[in-house]
Amino acid sequence: MRYQNDQELFALMKEKLYTAVCCDVMDDLGYWNQAMRHDLRPVDNDMVVVGRAKTVLAPNVYKVYENPYKIEIDALDSVKEGEVVVVSTNNSTTNGIWGELMSTATVARGGTGAIVEGMVRDIRQIKKMNFPLFAVGYKPVDSKGRGYVIDYDCPVDCGGVRVKPGDVVFGDIDGAIVIPKEIADDVIRLALEKVSKEKMTKNELLEGKYLKDVYAKFGVL
Amino acid sequence: MRYQNDQELFALMKEKLYTAVCCDVMDDLGYWNQAMRHDLRPVDNDMVVVGRAKTVLAPNVYKVYENPYKIEIDALDSVKEGEVVVVSTNNSTTNGIWGELMSTATVARGGTGAIVEGMVRDIRQIKKMNFPLFAVGYKPVDSKGRGYVIDYDCPVDCGGVRVKPGDVVFGDIDGAIVIPKEIADDVIRLALEKVSKEKMTKNELLEGKYLKDVYAKFGVL
Amino acid sequence: MRYQNDQELFALMKEKLYTAVCCDVMDDLGYWNQAMRHDLRPVDNDMVVVGRAKTVLAPNVYKVYENPYKIEIDALDSVKEGEVVVVSTNNSTTNGIWGELMSTATVARGGTGAIVEGMVRDIRQIKKMNFPLFAVGYKPVDSKGRGYVIDYDCPVDCGGVRVKPGDVVFGDIDGAIVIPKEIADDVIRLALEKVSKEKMTKNELLEGKYLKDVYAKFGVL
Amino acid sequence: MRYQNDQELFALMKEKLYTAVCCDVMDDLGYWNQAMRHDLRPVDNDMVVVGRAKTVLAPNVYKVYENPYKIEIDALDSVKEGEVVVVSTNNSTTNGIWGELMSTATVARGGTGAIVEGMVRDIRQIKKMNFPLFAVGYKPVDSKGRGYVIDYDCPVDCGGVRVKPGDVVFGDIDGAIVIPKEIADDVIRLALEKVSKEKMTKNELLEGKYLKDVYAKFGVL
Amino acid sequence: MRYQNDQELFALMKEKLYTAVCCDVMDDLGYWNQAMRHDLRPVDNDMVVVGRAKTVLAPNVYKVYENPYKIEIDALDSVKEGEVVVVSTNNSTTNGIWGELMSTATVARGGTGAIVEGMVRDIRQIKKMNFPLFAVGYKPVDSKGRGYVIDYDCPVDCGGVRVKPGDVVFGDIDGAIVIPKEIADDVIRLALEKVSKEKMTKNELLEGKYLKDVYAKFGVL
Amino acid sequence: MRYQNDQELFALMKEKLYTAVCCDVMDDLGYWNQAMRHDLRPVDNDMVVVGRAKTVLAPNVYKVYENPYKIEIDALDSVKEGEVVVVSTNNSTTNGIWGELMSTATVARGGTGAIVEGMVRDIRQIKKMNFPLFAVGYKPVDSKGRGYVIDYDCPVDCGGVRVKPGDVVFGDIDGAIVIPKEIADDVIRLALEKVSKEKMTKNELLEGKYLKDVYAKFGVL
Repeated sequence: MRYQNDQELFALMKEKLYTAVCCDVMDDLGYWNQAMRHDLRPVDNDMVVVGRAKTVLAPNVYKVYENPYKIEIDALDSVKEGEVVVVSTNNSTTNGIWGELMSTATVARGGTGAIVEGMVRDIRQIKKMNFPLFAVGYKPVDSKGRGYVIDYDCPVDCGGVRVKPGDVVFGDIDGAIVIPKEIADDVIRLALEKVSKEKMTKNELLEGKYLKDVYAKFGVL
Repeated sequence: MRYQNDQELFALMKEKLYTAVCCDVMDDLGYWNQAMRHDLRPVDNDMVVVGRAKTVLAPNVYKVYENPYKIEIDALDSVKEGEVVVVSTNNSTTNGIWGELMSTATVARGGTGAIVEGMVRDIRQIKKMNFPLFAVGYKPVDSKGRGYVIDYDCPVDCGGVRVKPGDVVFGDIDGAIVIPKEIADDVIRLALEKVSKEKMTKNELLEGKYLKDVYAKFGVL
Repeated sequence: MRYQNDQELFALMKEKLYTAVCCDVMDDLGYWNQAMRHDLRPVDNDMVVVGRAKTVLAPNVYKVYENPYKIEIDALDSVKEGEVVVVSTNNSTTNGIWGELMSTATVARGGTGAIVEGMVRDIRQIKKMNFPLFAVGYKPVDSKGRGYVIDYDCPVDCGGVRVKPGDVVFGDIDGAIVIPKEIADDVIRLALEKVSKEKMTKNELLEGKYLKDVYAKFGVL
Repeated sequence: MRYQNDQELFALMKEKLYTAVCCDVMDDLGYWNQAMRHDLRPVDNDMVVVGRAKTVLAPNVYKVYENPYKIEIDALDSVKEGEVVVVSTNNSTTNGIWGELMSTATVARGGTGAIVEGMVRDIRQIKKMNFPLFAVGYKPVDSKGRGYVIDYDCPVDCGGVRVKPGDVVFGDIDGAIVIPKEIADDVIRLALEKVSKEKMTKNELLEGKYLKDVYAKFGVL
Repeated sequence: MRYQNDQELFALMKEKLYTAVCCDVMDDLGYWNQAMRHDLRPVDNDMVVVGRAKTVLAPNVYKVYENPYKIEIDALDSVKEGEVVVVSTNNSTTNGIWGELMSTATVARGGTGAIVEGMVRDIRQIKKMNFPLFAVGYKPVDSKGRGYVIDYDCPVDCGGVRVKPGDVVFGDIDGAIVIPKEIADDVIRLALEKVSKEKMTKNELLEGKYLKDVYAKFGVL
Repeated sequence: MRYQNDQELFALMKEKLYTAVCCDVMDDLGYWNQAMRHDLRPVDNDMVVVGRAKTVLAPNVYKVYENPYKIEIDALDSVKEGEVVVVSTNNSTTNGIWGELMSTATVARGGTGAIVEGMVRDIRQIKKMNFPLFAVGYKPVDSKGRGYVIDYDCPVDCGGVRVKPGDVVFGDIDGAIVIPKEIADDVIRLALEKVSKEKMTKNELLEGKYLKDVYAKFGVL
């Protein structure tokens, strides 16, 4: 039943929420460092990604290892429905770790996107697929001989935030964030509440009211 | 009468001028460092901003202060018609200092845009509002507990350029620039003159002439 | 006959190839460092550039030299059909070395684009011209008094890759690469072969097959 | 009685402990991010600083404010015996916030050193005083018109670590660390225990034994 | 007579002044940006350099030019007594532009030191010579094929400060600064006055007085 | 016999050569990129390291793995006489990968030093041991839970230079360099020859001759 729930949850998040309101709620709960570094950007500004983190750890290497894709293939073939692949490379600028075939393989297993702290390639095709991909940059080089997947389903750092397998990752035009699994239900419930208050604040500002008065009334900014 | 004039002036600049030609003219007048750092980019490439600088100084802080938005609200509620809010944060990468509500509050007072040396959020909504916003990056976090407005209507550094309240700030796809108020009239008059020469140079190049000959004739490149 | 051949070749590359597959082939041939730094981006994601490198070396200077554009004009007036201007500035962030008039002059001689390790300007017009331009950033300032072309048709470093005059440069949405002239024929032939294998891999993944099995079959990822 | 204890404690730490062993112990207790960024270095490699954090928050400003040193003077005049001044500037590279007179004023109140995330000056004199100072860099400029102390005795970030007033800060040749006050007693007790095990490991290695065997025996590396 | 005067002046500066007090005075005169970037450091902390700027402009190149040292040799052979060679490289990290032989040649002409915005080598020998050298870093590579002197006795940027030939450059443990020639006499006179006030402030602090009272009395901090 | 020779060779290099002259010779042989990045510095300026590269690859990880030191211990226990441990971490700033015990273990096996592209700790003790260590920075944290040795005796990148096992690495005050094993004999022979020419150049400069004449005579600079 869990994945059933997740999918309903993720659809709800995509429809009603955005990353900023979730960050505000996490601030209130004492989780201040859940937004990834600002250089991790969606390939298209319209792309929204939400799902459970499927973590992958891929450091730089400097030769072509035997079976260079072995663990990477295992990782991708074990993606589950509703998962987002989160790739940590210690911010490699040399390794084009993600591309069209990995995106296709992820989709084939029911994965819903990828967040890559590093370089990606095949962007034209990935945009055509409308596969939600967040990355630091683009580089048209393969990972073979440049990076190697050494572990997956392990804690990683991605964009300066610790991500555990199963955490909810959420990315939109404002950036990508991590909602720890243990607080995910609370965060989403509180975020849905906050959204409506913001709408009222905005409406009164649009009517020409002063920020001072509107903030005094609703307490959000 | 001043704001009346400003508005006509700014409309003229938007229609006839662009930042590059203003920089060329300022070079000729001995003002060489008026273009902000290249990482200060418009949220949409089509956005153009022009107006008088309304400066705001917002350094990083590390706790939630009492009345965390007090001075920020004062600053925004005192924006005047034709002003552009210029936010200086010592290039904070942690504080999402600007968002949809601030944009709305600025518009409500007649402000015409914002230039933020730092992180901004609510980009989807700001693009929908067509609010001209320039920023270094996007991060979906609030300023509460991360930054604090300590002063406004004061000199600031923004993108490596000193900005005084009332200076003319001008941003387009090529970047954002500062035209000191004391030379603004001259710069705009000379820029309008230069625009026509560039057009002639371009036309002769399009006819297939060599750069050497065209430059000899018009002296612009 | 050479330029005739080049043009057919470049048309073929634009139609059938992309930078990533050429990098893979160069890896196999032992050329591992042919992709420029990821911060060298096309002005529009749809822009594709391919041609022979026409190199230009333009370091920063700090006064207005006599005849400040002299060598620059010589360089641009000597562009040949099918050439791409490759500008090396030791990654200047102060000098807006390239703009609309240079683009126009390049087109007038039959040049097919430019790759600038540095700042460029007049982006709106360059996008309108559909001139394929790759650059590190945008800054609305002229080169006069900021940079000076000291040499051309010389080896340069651009985006971390050594470029010799006549090397084939190729840029698309994934970035810009250098194919040394001495291996260009081999690279292009092998790349055309690899493209078809990738298509088969992708198709089988789209049918839902596991990456493990598809990789075992085609050996590409 | 508290300061009496602190002083004995700090003398013990200076004599028996070093930052590395305290970090190891904090790792074991689940505090993984207590070491400041590596660019925060002692002015002299021999300098050791230990004490309670007296925090100061000094962002960049861009004019000379009235009473530019007011809060800074209050902060320094309220330093207590055994305190180390910890200055946070959002990593300013323009403001020489600390110098000889501040060092002298700190010593006059019984302060035992300073850790400055930013620039400092008067290094020759500070070395002569043997005042333990850690800083990111040296710049011979005053803070007046460049930075302004806006708060003290508040939480700050310094070198990437959150510091609360009263936390124990400890710096030596390996860098500067923060021991949160609530775990300080445990950390110091456990660190004293660990020091002796390391000595035994080292001695056996010096006798020529293999790391594998020595690690198997003592479990430290 | 000029050099006679200069030498007496520079001896006085070395004996009585330091860079920090000169920066304070320049601040008061409205010259706020005269201190070079903090990564320009003396090879030995005890080194002090003072003299008239002999500027050299040496950008990166990517082949071995004919007569690769021609202009560099002209520049060094024209150094005059009391001059300090100031080398601008647009912050090259590849070119070891300065070494033992250049230091020796400078001394042979009466030059008193060098400030190099870039890499230098032969540090062991240069320390032995006690030649005052400031640099960004050390790299054991030659300039041949990596950099080329294209001009000298021209304005340059060095460490973020504009330097004109003949400006007074002054470097000590706190960093390197530029005193524009047109204000040099004033700066030095005022700096000598300020030095004595600082001494009095320090003495009263050492007697245990509070900063508040001492600052009220002398007005320096 | 090989190690016997190596030791004589390395003693000769330490006595007669320095890194700069070896770089010059490698330039002449067409090896232009053999000097590591300038931020890789000796712990003490007097330290000289020379030996065969024993490479170690240690990327960042984000949990404590079982047997966290296993491969690291194997690597160090297999160090041979005359080897220098070269650690590649993709420039980790979080992992204090090297410390006193590793230094001691290396010495116990006859290793002659270490070059670490990353953070190191226990500097006080390592200086006391006079163990030649080059590193990017110091951080008092352990590698456990931060980094993991995944391979050794493999090609690595260190400070921007590719290092193969058995290459000769050489570090002194000017930095660290890599002499590929296949050209090591030639480089050392030619470097010994060049050293004497430089001495003659220097002597004539010291006699007051002009650089132009001395360079014309000896052809070295």
